[in-house]
Amino acid sequence: MLGALARSAPLIVAEPGSGVRILARADWRSEQVAVLSGGGAGHEPSHAGFVGRGMLTAAVSGEVFASPSVAAVLAGLRHCCGKPGALLVVKNYTGDRLNFGLAAEQARREGLHVRTVIVADDIALADASQPRGIAGTVLLHKYAGHLAERGLALDELADRAEHFASQLLSLGMALSSCTLPGHPIERRSPELGLGIHNEPGAEQVAPKDAAEAVALVLTPLLAAAEQRYGEQRRLIVMLNNLGGCSTQELAVLTDELLTRIGVERIALLVRPAPLMTSLDMHGFSITLLPAEDDYVEALSSVVDAAAWPGICRPHAAQTFAVVAESDAEPGVGQRNPANEQAIQRITTALRAAEQQLDQLDARSGDGDAGSTFAAGAKAVDGKLAKGALSSAEPARLNDELGRLLAHAMGGSSGVLLSILFMATGTALTAGKSWPDALLDGIERVQHYGGAKLGDRTMLDALIPAVQVLPQGLAAAATAARAGAEHTATITRARAGRSAYVPGHALAGAVDPGAEAVALAFAALAVG
Amino acid sequence: MLGALARSAPLIVAEPGSGVRILARADWRSEQVAVLSGGGAGHEPSHAGFVGRGMLTAAVSGEVFASPSVAAVLAGLRHCCGKPGALLVVKNYTGDRLNFGLAAEQARREGLHVRTVIVADDIALADASQPRGIAGTVLLHKYAGHLAERGLALDELADRAEHFASQLLSLGMALSSCTLPGHPIERRSPELGLGIHNEPGAEQVAPKDAAEAVALVLTPLLAAAEQRYGEQRRLIVMLNNLGGCSTQELAVLTDELLTRIGVERIALLVRPAPLMTSLDMHGFSITLLPAEDDYVEALSSVVDAAAWPGICRPHAAQTFAVVAESDAEPGVGQRNPANEQAIQRITTALRAAEQQLDQLDARSGDGDAGSTFAAGAKAVDGKLAKGALSSAEPARLNDELGRLLAHAMGGSSGVLLSILFMATGTALTAGKSWPDALLDGIERVQHYGGAKLGDRTMLDALIPAVQVLPQGLAAAATAARAGAEHTATITRARAGRSAYVPGHALAGAVDPGAEAVALAFAALAVG
Repeated sequence: MLGALARSAPLIVAEPGSGVRILARADWRSEQVAVLSGGGAGHEPSHAGFVGRGMLTAAVSGEVFASPSVAAVLAGLRHCCGKPGALLVVKNYTGDRLNFGLAAEQARREGLHVRTVIVADDIALADASQPRGIAGTVLLHKYAGHLAERGLALDELADRAEHFASQLLSLGMALSSCTLPGHPIERRSPELGLGIHNEPGAEQVAPKDAAEAVALVLTPLLAAAEQRYGEQRRLIVMLNNLGGCSTQELAVLTDELLTRIGVERIALLVRPAPLMTSLDMHGFSITLLPAEDDYVEALSSVVDAAAWPGICRPHAAQTFAVVAESDAEPGVGQRNPANEQAIQRITTALRAAEQQLDQLDARSGDGDAGSTFAAGAKAVDGKLAKGALSSAEPARLNDELGRLLAHAMGGSSGVLLSILFMATGTALTAGKSWPDALLDGIERVQHYGGAKLGDRTMLDALIPAVQVLPQGLAAAATAARAGAEHTATITRARAGRSAYVPGHALAGAVDPGAEAVALAFAALAVG
Repeated sequence: MLGALARSAPLIVAEPGSGVRILARADWRSEQVAVLSGGGAGHEPSHAGFVGRGMLTAAVSGEVFASPSVAAVLAGLRHCCGKPGALLVVKNYTGDRLNFGLAAEQARREGLHVRTVIVADDIALADASQPRGIAGTVLLHKYAGHLAERGLALDELADRAEHFASQLLSLGMALSSCTLPGHPIERRSPELGLGIHNEPGAEQVAPKDAAEAVALVLTPLLAAAEQRYGEQRRLIVMLNNLGGCSTQELAVLTDELLTRIGVERIALLVRPAPLMTSLDMHGFSITLLPAEDDYVEALSSVVDAAAWPGICRPHAAQTFAVVAESDAEPGVGQRNPANEQAIQRITTALRAAEQQLDQLDARSGDGDAGSTFAAGAKAVDGKLAKGALSSAEPARLNDELGRLLAHAMGGSSGVLLSILFMATGTALTAGKSWPDALLDGIERVQHYGGAKLGDRTMLDALIPAVQVLPQGLAAAATAARAGAEHTATITRARAGRSAYVPGHALAGAVDPGAEAVALAFAALAVG
C-alpha cells in the first residue's frame, strides 16, 4: 500500500532494508516544526496519505492494527526534526501511547525538542477514563500542519494542538465489522460506538435506514457538543467512511447529516471520504468541532497531501426554474387536405398491418412492433381528426410528428422516428429539399441508433427509398419494398431488435421495421 | 444523493417540482461552450460530482441505471446553452444514445448549437459493433471541460473531443456484482469485462491475488494500446474504483499497476478513486490513453469539481537512510562500586520475588509480572557483570537502563520503566536533583501510560516513595510499602493490567507492579 504512495506522491521513504515504514515529505528542509503521526496499518489513507506541505511532515506505519515500534518512530523523529522541533500526534491506544511516548523520550534524550499530543475523541463509552483516538485525529493533522507551515514555535503549536484535540468529539457506527487479512470473515450485528481496530461497539443497534443511522450517531454527539461547546455553537463537521461505504451510501448519509444539523449551523464540512478507516468496515463516523475562526481558517487552507479531500461550506440548495416542454398544442399552422389524406393513407396501412407486424416481430423481437406502429398511427389520426397538424408547412409538420411520436409510440422505435422527424424538420427549415432533409434525418438516426444499412432494421427500407425519392414516390415505394424483402436474407443483425437472436431464427422473415417503412411508402405512392 | 451535492458544492439544481434532475454550475454565465453529460444514477460521483469550473457545466441524472428522459436532457441544454453552444457527452448505451440524441435534435430545432460525442471505450467484447461507454467518459469530461474553459469554439472542441474519445481504452473486473436497491443480493463469480449496469462480464475469472487481477485487466488493455497507439507509447492511466474496493485494496492495485506498466511509461496517473461506479460493485476498471501533450495539459489543470481526485506523476520511490538505533555498547562511562551493589540488591530482590509476583498477577492480569520483572533484573545483572553500566554517572546510567529495559522486559511494563528512566535521565542532564528528576519521569509515565495515583498500578508505590525521597531511602521504602499495601483495598482499577478485572477479584491482593516497586525501595534502603 505504501509502495503505491511512495511512487505516486512527492514523498521519500525509509530504505526498504531498514525494517521501518516511514513516509516523509520529499521537500522537507526542517525549517519549521515537523508534525509526525502514525499508528497501525489498516487505517489508510491515514496516516501516510496526509503527508504533504501544510499537513503531516511524516507518517510512521506499523503492521495491520499494531503500533509501529519505538525504533520506527524514533527514526522518523531523527529524520524530520530540526531546530524548530517536532510534534508527535498520537491516537489514544495503549500501544501507540507507549511506543510513541518512549520514542519521544529517547529523542529528547538525544537533544531533540519533541512534544506529543494525544487524541482521545471517541465519545462511545461515557465513563471511559481513556477515550480512544479515532477519526478526529485527521483534523488535528490538518490543524497542526497548518500552524507549522505558518512558522509557529513548537510550544505554542503544541499547546494549541492540545486544546484543539480536547474539543474533538467523534462517534462511529458500522453495519458490519471489517475483514482482517488471513482471518475468517466475522458476521457481527450493526453496532454503535466502535473503535477502528474491530473492537466490539458500545451497543448493538438496528437502524432501518440512513436517517436512523445518522440520528443514532448524531444525537449523542450533539448532546456532547452542547455540553462541551455551549448551546447551538456553529460547527465544523467531518463524515468519515470507515472503509466499506459506497459513494452512494456516503452521499445519502451526507444528505441526512446536513438536514439533521442544519446547513446554517455548519461552518465547514470536510468532504465526505475515507479518512481514518478500519480496512473495509461497512460504516462511518462523524466528528464535530466548534467553528472557531482559527480552526476554520486552518482547515480551509490548501495542502499537498494526497488524501485530504478538501472542505466545503454547506448552504441551502439553489434552484433554477425548468423551461418545461410544452405539451399544449404549439398553435396549428397552415393545413393541406391532400397532405392530410396522404398521411392518413399511411396510418391506415400501419393500423391494418398491426397483427402482421407483431407476428414478424415475434420471430426477431418481443412481438410488439405492430402494436407500437399502430399506437403511433392512432395518435397521428387523433391529431388529424382535431385538425391539429400543420400539414401545409413541412418543417413544422415534422416537428409536430416528432414530438408526438416520442411519447405516443414508446420504445426505441418511437425515439428513433422522433429523431428522424426532428432532424428532417431542422434541415427543411435550413432550406434543404425533402429528399436531402430526409437524408439528414437518416444520418442522425444512424448516429444515435448505431445501425447501418444491412443491419436488419427499418433503415434497410428507408435508405434506398429516400435515395430514389427524387425520381418520385413510386420509385421510392419500389425501393422500400425491395429493401424490406432483402432483410429476410440477413441472418446476422448487428443492431436493433434482432441483434440478440440467432441467425437461423431470422432467415426468411422480413424485419418488421423495414416492412412498416415499405408499407408506408406503398401507401404514399398510391396517392 | 444529489441533495447532498446541491447543498455542499457551488451548484444550482432544477427545482424539485420539475421532475427532472439537473445539477449545473451556479457561476455559469453561458460565455463558453457548455459541456453536459449524464446518464443513469448509480454511477456516482458520475456525473454530478464532476460539475464545476474546468469540467462539466451540468449533469443530468436518471433513475438508477436508467437514462434520464429526453425532457430532462433538453431542460439541461436549455438552461446552459448560450451562443457558444453545447457539447453533450454520451456513454454508448442505447437508452442514453436515444434520449440524449433526441434531446440534442430538439434543442437544434430550437436553434441551439449542439454537438454530441459518444464514448465507447470498453474493450471487453472484441467484436462488439457498439462498445459500451464506461469510466473513460470521466476523462473526456475533464478534457472537454478544459478546452471549453479555454474558450474553444464548439466545432473544434467537439472534433477534438471525438478524437479523444476514440483513443480511450477501458476494461473492468469485479469480484462480485453490485447490490441493486430493492433487489435480492446476487452472488456472481469474479468476472472480467463488465459494464457498469451489472450486466454479466465477458468471461468468468479467478484471480488469486491483486497481481493476477491487475494482469487480467492490463494484458488485453496494453495489447489494445499497442495496436491503437503504436509501440510503447507513454500512457495516461486511470484506476477507477467500481464502488466496493476499500482504500487498502485500491492502494495494492495501484502498486501492481505501477509495477506492471512501469512508472517511466506513465506520464500521468489519475489519483485512484471511485469515478464511474456501479453502486457497491467490488471491482475496478483501468483506462488508458496515449500521453499526448495536450491531453496531459488538459487533465492536469485544477478544477472546481467536487469529485475530481486530481492527478499525479508516478516516479521511482525515493528513499532515505535510517539512522539505526545502536545496539552496540555506547561506551561505558565512570563506574561506582557502591551504586552497582545497590542496583544488584534490587535485581536480586526482584529475581527472588518472581514466583510471588506471578501469583499476585494471576489474580489481576495474565500472571507474568514476576517473570517480566525478573527478565529485566537478569538483563541488568548481565550488564553489571560485564561492567557495562556507567554507574557513577546518573544521567547516563538512566539512559542505559532505559534502553536496556525497553527490549529486555517486553510488554507495557518494560516500555513504561524505559520511559521513566529516559525522562529521569533527561531531567538529570538538565541539572535537576534525583527526586525532582524522578518526578519528571513519573509525570511522563502518567502522560503516556494514562494512569494516576489510585489506579492500582506501580505508581501507587512509586509516587509516595519519590515524594518523601528527600527525607532518605528508609522513608521512601516505608512510603512505597504503605502505597503497595493500599492497592489491596482498591477494587476499581481505571488503568493498567487490572482495568478489565471485576472488583471482587481484586480485593485483598496487592498490585504486583506496586509490590515490585516496594521490594526495590526496600532493597535500596537496607544498604
